[in-house]
Amino acid sequence: MAPAPRKKFKKPEKKNLNIEEIAEGVKSGSRLHLGKAITLLESSNPSDKRDGQNLLNSLLPSTGNSLRIGITGVPGAGKSTFIETFGEMLTGLGFRVAVLAIDPSSSVTGGSILGDKTRMEQLAKNPKAFIRPSPTAGTLGGVHKKTRETMLVCEAAGYDVILVETVGVGQSETLVRGMVDMFLLLVLTGAGDELQGMKKGILELADAILVHKADSGNLPLAEKTVREYKQMLHFLQPATENWKTRAIAVSSIENNGIQNVWEMAKEFESTAKENGIFDKRRQTQTKDWFRSMITDELYGRFFEDPDKRRMVKDLEQQILAEKLTVAQAIQELFE
Amino acid sequence: MAPAPRKKFKKPEKKNLNIEEIAEGVKSGSRLHLGKAITLLESSNPSDKRDGQNLLNSLLPSTGNSLRIGITGVPGAGKSTFIETFGEMLTGLGFRVAVLAIDPSSSVTGGSILGDKTRMEQLAKNPKAFIRPSPTAGTLGGVHKKTRETMLVCEAAGYDVILVETVGVGQSETLVRGMVDMFLLLVLTGAGDELQGMKKGILELADAILVHKADSGNLPLAEKTVREYKQMLHFLQPATENWKTRAIAVSSIENNGIQNVWEMAKEFESTAKENGIFDKRRQTQTKDWFRSMITDELYGRFFEDPDKRRMVKDLEQQILAEKLTVAQAIQELFE
Repeated sequence: MAPAPRKKFKKPEKKNLNIEEIAEGVKSGSRLHLGKAITLLESSNPSDKRDGQNLLNSLLPSTGNSLRIGITGVPGAGKSTFIETFGEMLTGLGFRVAVLAIDPSSSVTGGSILGDKTRMEQLAKNPKAFIRPSPTAGTLGGVHKKTRETMLVCEAAGYDVILVETVGVGQSETLVRGMVDMFLLLVLTGAGDELQGMKKGILELADAILVHKADSGNLPLAEKTVREYKQMLHFLQPATENWKTRAIAVSSIENNGIQNVWEMAKEFESTAKENGIFDKRRQTQTKDWFRSMITDELYGRFFEDPDKRRMVKDLEQQILAEKLTVAQAIQELFE
Repeated sequence: MAPAPRKKFKKPEKKNLNIEEIAEGVKSGSRLHLGKAITLLESSNPSDKRDGQNLLNSLLPSTGNSLRIGITGVPGAGKSTFIETFGEMLTGLGFRVAVLAIDPSSSVTGGSILGDKTRMEQLAKNPKAFIRPSPTAGTLGGVHKKTRETMLVCEAAGYDVILVETVGVGQSETLVRGMVDMFLLLVLTGAGDELQGMKKGILELADAILVHKADSGNLPLAEKTVREYKQMLHFLQPATENWKTRAIAVSSIENNGIQNVWEMAKEFESTAKENGIFDKRRQTQTKDWFRSMITDELYGRFFEDPDKRRMVKDLEQQILAEKLTVAQAIQELFE
């Protein structure tokens, strides 16, 4: 075979990606292709977007086979340390683990100061683990959408456990709860004082409360805290039908209780699968996701028009000044 | 002046209501006109609707002067008995009291078996009280809208305290929380076991928890329950900034603690007014109400089209069958 005739230099056609090739690469476990796939899905370029969706579509039949676990807690609760230790244990058992993050602050500031990979140094080097930093562009809803799609791609790439991390403030926990099978809340000893800074009703989103930093010196206090949470949980609604929300003590730095978390997760999975809750929840999550995207789209399209935005602002002022009823404002806006 | 020439019999022009006359009647405290005003606002007839909104508009400057209190609790918590006793006490102090209800079950079944007036026999006969049964037509959002507007009309009619009652299940508490200044949760002794059947996060919607049916024989248990709730409240986020959520024991049938509820409500009102939370919350509520009406309208208009409804159903099936990504479905729907 003769070498191809030398062509004049031409900027490589970046757009000319072979979707099928990437899909095959992802499914065969290539990290390179996985990265390319996620980059496509995160791109705001219209042609990339279309390619990304076609790619995701061709991966869909290979998705859904992981256990999706959400992890939340206030800053300082030790989420990264926990994920690092938990992730190392899981890869040690032979599982492939993907770590995704939704950081509401990073979507505002354009990135956390400490990158996700720096925070989980060991796990970042682990060949069985994949860490994807929080997408920083767009609204919380947009970040959520990207994380959701990234999760699906990771599943197609054969990751067995997906950990989705979020900070326990604002709206992101509800969004994460809406995309995972099981939801863990990391708290510190000294009981729920930090709950005060967290989302209302967060205890009722969690399938398990991990009283973290239950290190040897701290153990009696941690166990007291576990008892206090158990008492509260007795009164509250469990997040998952037929699953009694647990509270357990965990030390990541001493690797204590980490095994229990995994035992519990497996028990949760088998219970929820046996009674049908597992599949039912995933279906409901997908439907809700579709409905909320419709609402987002309607709202977004409506407010795209600067006249409409101005009008809404103006009507709002009139309502607050008691010159218009809300119903009248709505009528004016839509006529 | 000569009598007008006799005309042939003509069906009276029912529509020819004098809005100004009704407005004046409402403001002068006429129950007849108050009833007429509410009926107009609840009507689904387009011309009535327009009249109703014009009427409400002219009443707007006279609204906002009541204390709006929401009351929730599971069926059997004794909400009607409490409202009757509390309402009687308030009218005894010279206040005029309006009782409105949002009953999510009645909007489905077309009315509760027991009418609201039958449930509060004494208060219904009280000239200083006005009881409006739950509007039965329409969706929960629609019922909510009507209750909100009725509340405003009652304020224009000079009612000092508006009690909005709702059953503590489903979504109605969030809606009621969104239209009142203070929110009370009635629970029974034996502590939060019944919380299990209630909305998630309901404790964090409440400004006070009334441990009800704290009758003499039941008092030790009631006080134990109060302590348990206090302990839980210590960990949770208060519903109102700068107001520590209370838990107190109340017996309606023995008229015990009812006075305390009113003392507490007055304290709540003055605290929230002093620190500006009161007005700020009302403004936020009105803005949120406007925004949610815009979303409702957009969603409603979109789904009015039977083709769109069919398409959404069909796309949803394709998503669940993993033939389409959510983003692709959205694109197809909006193109």
